[in-house]
Amino acid sequence: MSQKVIVYGGKGALGSTLVHHFKSKAWWVCSIDLTENTEADANVVVDSKGDLQEQAKQVKDDVEKVANGSKIDAIYCVAGGWAGGNAKADAFVKNTDLMMKQSIWTSVISANIAAHYLKEGGLLTLTGAVPCLEGTSGMIGYGLSKAAVHQLTASLAQEKGGLPSGAVVQTILPVTLDTPMNRKFMPDSDFTTWTPMSYVAELFSTWTEDAAVRHPNGSLVKLITTDGTTTQVLV
Amino acid sequence: MSQKVIVYGGKGALGSTLVHHFKSKAWWVCSIDLTENTEADANVVVDSKGDLQEQAKQVKDDVEKVANGSKIDAIYCVAGGWAGGNAKADAFVKNTDLMMKQSIWTSVISANIAAHYLKEGGLLTLTGAVPCLEGTSGMIGYGLSKAAVHQLTASLAQEKGGLPSGAVVQTILPVTLDTPMNRKFMPDSDFTTWTPMSYVAELFSTWTEDAAVRHPNGSLVKLITTDGTTTQVLV
Repeated sequence: MSQKVIVYGGKGALGSTLVHHFKSKAWWVCSIDLTENTEADANVVVDSKGDLQEQAKQVKDDVEKVANGSKIDAIYCVAGGWAGGNAKADAFVKNTDLMMKQSIWTSVISANIAAHYLKEGGLLTLTGAVPCLEGTSGMIGYGLSKAAVHQLTASLAQEKGGLPSGAVVQTILPVTLDTPMNRKFMPDSDFTTWTPMSYVAELFSTWTEDAAVRHPNGSLVKLITTDGTTTQVLV
Repeated sequence: MSQKVIVYGGKGALGSTLVHHFKSKAWWVCSIDLTENTEADANVVVDSKGDLQEQAKQVKDDVEKVANGSKIDAIYCVAGGWAGGNAKADAFVKNTDLMMKQSIWTSVISANIAAHYLKEGGLLTLTGAVPCLEGTSGMIGYGLSKAAVHQLTASLAQEKGGLPSGAVVQTILPVTLDTPMNRKFMPDSDFTTWTPMSYVAELFSTWTEDAAVRHPNGSLVKLITTDGTTTQVLV
């Protein structure tokens, strides 16, 4: 059955893969990102100059316009990025600021959109990271931002978290995604331990189409890839 | 022995109590806050109009000036505040923005200052919250911000977190502090379960003066008050 879905970060590596995959299934897809994804049916182009409140208002207003009265089946927040640095690094504060914007802001806005436009029984996915379940001294801003997303997941899954009745939040925790950028910057890695983006696209399709295969509401779902095979492990 | 310490949030309820307590011990105290604490020996007044990077730079530059070449024995980040709301609340994004600024920004700046100006073997304290170890649907922004502080603690405690050699981070997790504001807004509560601010002042004094009584580096220290008596419980 055709679905109506939103990909937050629809121009990124994973986001583009998702948009393409969902279009191949003839779903209606809206991309939210800093630039348009021309493959999507609708685009919300975020003005990155605004602060959190301005961005949230703009995105919410624009989603309302493109949804045009319909409720959304699923919202996938795959926006994000990576920047490193410990507390003494020159770029520590700058990179922490960036990580908060890329991970926390997008997740908070996605939660807000989900609260207002997701349909009952719908799906919201957020993106965490396995390493950030513990301390991450070499990438402190990244770690604290993903930890915030993990805890946000638990809040949203509670009865009074604000999501529509029966809606479910699932947060994926990759170790490393097999993206072109990761291949470029970590060329000597063992790619058979990296999670293919196509796996995530297929996983999200399944969760969207069949509520019965979702994990319990609020699950943090580790994606563990070994010898090219990915398994889901709940935290 | 006299100590040289910094209280981030030195004009708040807990911060003022700390400044007063340390001055009664004849320590050198610097307060960092939006307004001056006249009881302190030095003040860094934060320009709240700036973004995170601007605030961090201003605070760091000003701390360098008032420290005047001396290293700091302890930095206590007790800045913070509280605002509620689930994902559907009108004030959700606004309050989340505020919580991130009050808890994450101040903790990140404190970590950065500690990395540069704390002495070897010095002490950094941050402030988390017991409820935020789980989901907090009625106060989502508060919860995710404190969760970020908890994970930041773990990163800073690692060998390469950026703190000076032998320096230790301890994060207190109160349930409810016995402050005038909390008494005003929760007048019907059982105050014998609230943690007195004097307890925190005494605890911080002890940790500062005697490294042997500190908990392991990176500890999250729950402050559990029952019948007016507070105990420390490690997470």
